[in-house]
Amino acid sequence: MKSEIVCIGTEILLGNIINTNSYFLSEALAGLGIDVYYHSVVGDNQRRLEEVLNTSLKRSDLIITTGGLGPTADDLTKETVSKVLNKKLVLDEEELERLKAFFLKIGREMTKNNIKQAYLPEGSIRLPNLNGTAPGVIIETDRNTVIMLPGPPNEMKPMFENQVIPYLRKKSQGSLFSQTIRFFGIGESSLEDCLQDIIVSQSDPTIAPYAGEGEVKLRITTKTSDGKPGEAFNKTIEIIKERLGKYIYSIQDDTIENVTAGILMKSGLTLSIAESCTGGRISSMLTSVPGISKSLEGTVISYSNSVKTKVLGVRKETLDTFGAVSRETAVEMAEGVRNLCSSDIGLSVTGIAGPSGGTDEKPVGLVYIALSDPDCSGCWEKRFSGNREKIQIYSAKNAINILRLYLEHRASGVDKFSF
Amino acid sequence: MKSEIVCIGTEILLGNIINTNSYFLSEALAGLGIDVYYHSVVGDNQRRLEEVLNTSLKRSDLIITTGGLGPTADDLTKETVSKVLNKKLVLDEEELERLKAFFLKIGREMTKNNIKQAYLPEGSIRLPNLNGTAPGVIIETDRNTVIMLPGPPNEMKPMFENQVIPYLRKKSQGSLFSQTIRFFGIGESSLEDCLQDIIVSQSDPTIAPYAGEGEVKLRITTKTSDGKPGEAFNKTIEIIKERLGKYIYSIQDDTIENVTAGILMKSGLTLSIAESCTGGRISSMLTSVPGISKSLEGTVISYSNSVKTKVLGVRKETLDTFGAVSRETAVEMAEGVRNLCSSDIGLSVTGIAGPSGGTDEKPVGLVYIALSDPDCSGCWEKRFSGNREKIQIYSAKNAINILRLYLEHRASGVDKFSF
Repeated sequence: MKSEIVCIGTEILLGNIINTNSYFLSEALAGLGIDVYYHSVVGDNQRRLEEVLNTSLKRSDLIITTGGLGPTADDLTKETVSKVLNKKLVLDEEELERLKAFFLKIGREMTKNNIKQAYLPEGSIRLPNLNGTAPGVIIETDRNTVIMLPGPPNEMKPMFENQVIPYLRKKSQGSLFSQTIRFFGIGESSLEDCLQDIIVSQSDPTIAPYAGEGEVKLRITTKTSDGKPGEAFNKTIEIIKERLGKYIYSIQDDTIENVTAGILMKSGLTLSIAESCTGGRISSMLTSVPGISKSLEGTVISYSNSVKTKVLGVRKETLDTFGAVSRETAVEMAEGVRNLCSSDIGLSVTGIAGPSGGTDEKPVGLVYIALSDPDCSGCWEKRFSGNREKIQIYSAKNAINILRLYLEHRASGVDKFSF
Repeated sequence: MKSEIVCIGTEILLGNIINTNSYFLSEALAGLGIDVYYHSVVGDNQRRLEEVLNTSLKRSDLIITTGGLGPTADDLTKETVSKVLNKKLVLDEEELERLKAFFLKIGREMTKNNIKQAYLPEGSIRLPNLNGTAPGVIIETDRNTVIMLPGPPNEMKPMFENQVIPYLRKKSQGSLFSQTIRFFGIGESSLEDCLQDIIVSQSDPTIAPYAGEGEVKLRITTKTSDGKPGEAFNKTIEIIKERLGKYIYSIQDDTIENVTAGILMKSGLTLSIAESCTGGRISSMLTSVPGISKSLEGTVISYSNSVKTKVLGVRKETLDTFGAVSRETAVEMAEGVRNLCSSDIGLSVTGIAGPSGGTDEKPVGLVYIALSDPDCSGCWEKRFSGNREKIQIYSAKNAINILRLYLEHRASGVDKFSF
């Protein structure tokens, strides 16, 4: 079943509100195994809405609209859909009674405008709105199914979940199952190179790469009749793990901070962080994870050299000889914060986030990440490009990834982490 | 000029990501006085993209696309737009050099796929991408202008703001002039109540309120032929300032962190921060502002009580008697971090971000914000609702706003800030 989503509302075109309805419906339809091929947004304008609907009716089996079902004059969806499908609007007595009861309950007078909401296209299925006044509508024709839903998400979502999903489940056969694998340390094009043969040759499961911020995701999707993926799907996952295992950090679409915080909490080890150019981003990302407070002793953000020496104990000679952005300073920051906070692990970042402060020798984007434990310390040099925000995000994610690699290696119990 | 936005990417249709690009572009185009009549989303599929583009070219003067400019085989936008407009793709040597330099800098090998990105439609305008590998493109024909932008928001937004807006400003005549005023400490409905009379009665300028995260914005828009607003516009701004002046923190749509960092840098005073429940968010927000390193000495994120006592010097008796989330601890944290970092001002936050850790007496969302200078210290109690992320954001913004009020008061030279 080919489907598309049409959202009606000038406020979306003006950039007043973000179109979360399309997002919600797309995800829900994917879960039902219904392919969504298009989203459209059009304003509260009858001629343009007609044009969009006529295009949609030609190319899709199922059209879901949101918005334009309200009581005011610029709410035109029901009228326009009825016109395009050649249906009359007739008064639905049951809906009128429901509306009257609704207004009685909230103690507000029912206006003439509201009576308009009780008119439905002839032969349609009414979807009572338990959270507002506008009922939803399903119209079936020989070629198409059109489902009209109200615009406010708090009315649309429960109506879709409780009334539309059961209806669609009956109509559609089979659903999709997908899994998203996340990678760190490999680019989108290199990843695609590695999997070119199976991406090209396979139609089920399909494999699609997406670039994230400093990372890459791969979504593997298959059709299923019983909600479980088949052998071909599992085999594809195995091939991906075999070829790219060392870059995978989550096989369940989890974020790098969640995965790393999870391993840290499980390890029983404590962490402290010294941040410079990332200005608190590493801590902020890790502390978005509930429960982390038990594992994270503290962070020092040492913007000034005096805090680096006085609080973290970085030696003045180190700063004078090698500079604040150097391998040596990074290591002393990691060791210093570990001692200060009495934690098992110290993690540090120092670098130049820009836009100013770069030199030929030490350009904007040069970043040192160091990790220290009671046995030894190590440092990694990274060079990022882009604006200040991008360099900060990439630095923070890379530092968190280094912590993850360290913790995983330690948990594996093989031998010491090689710095 | 009629315009529309076409976003290309199967991940949007699958509900994997929310379409924030359309939202950003709609708002920006409205600001330029360019009417947006449609949004469309289509997957990475050449036939369907062709069909969507053909429809767009017929009904709109300006078409802005995002996505599908990446290096992989499913990135088809440039190829499809060129086909539909009957343009050849030719190698742009300058772009190729830029790409080579980019890969050299990040120390990653450039694959064949990436070379594809240096091919541009003949006669087009290249928009260099300073935050990624995919250049943007402007193509002008007799009837239409097509602007292709990369999909990732951190690449698309700066390209639009720095390169496309100046281009569009030249193209559009009789534009709109708008100004956005930002408020802190007042809700959307109270603000609307205060201005109800002028919101309802006026058609030029128009006034539209928007709720932000913990703050409210007001956008005032007028038509202009010479780029300057008229008398009615200026008078409206004056009325708003008169009625709501004490809540205004920016009359030029600036963020709370930018405004506050600006005042701090200008003041010549130095700041240090002690964060607990905000986990680095305050520092992270302030350090997103270039040049802040001169004014921000350092931050200590004291998740554990031991870091509170050992590093910040909070007294053990204070923690035992009043608890980590208390007025008393907040004040000692602010004083402690100010002493530790030898700064003029100390700012601290301690609270319960949840989801667990709350009690009847101290529920999730209870937050104390303290500020200390050499003369005295003060503390504010706040109660926020919502999930962990919302509580962290609201706490951070409120702390930054308190710092702003303090700095403004100090700059006014009247007398000491009343805590």
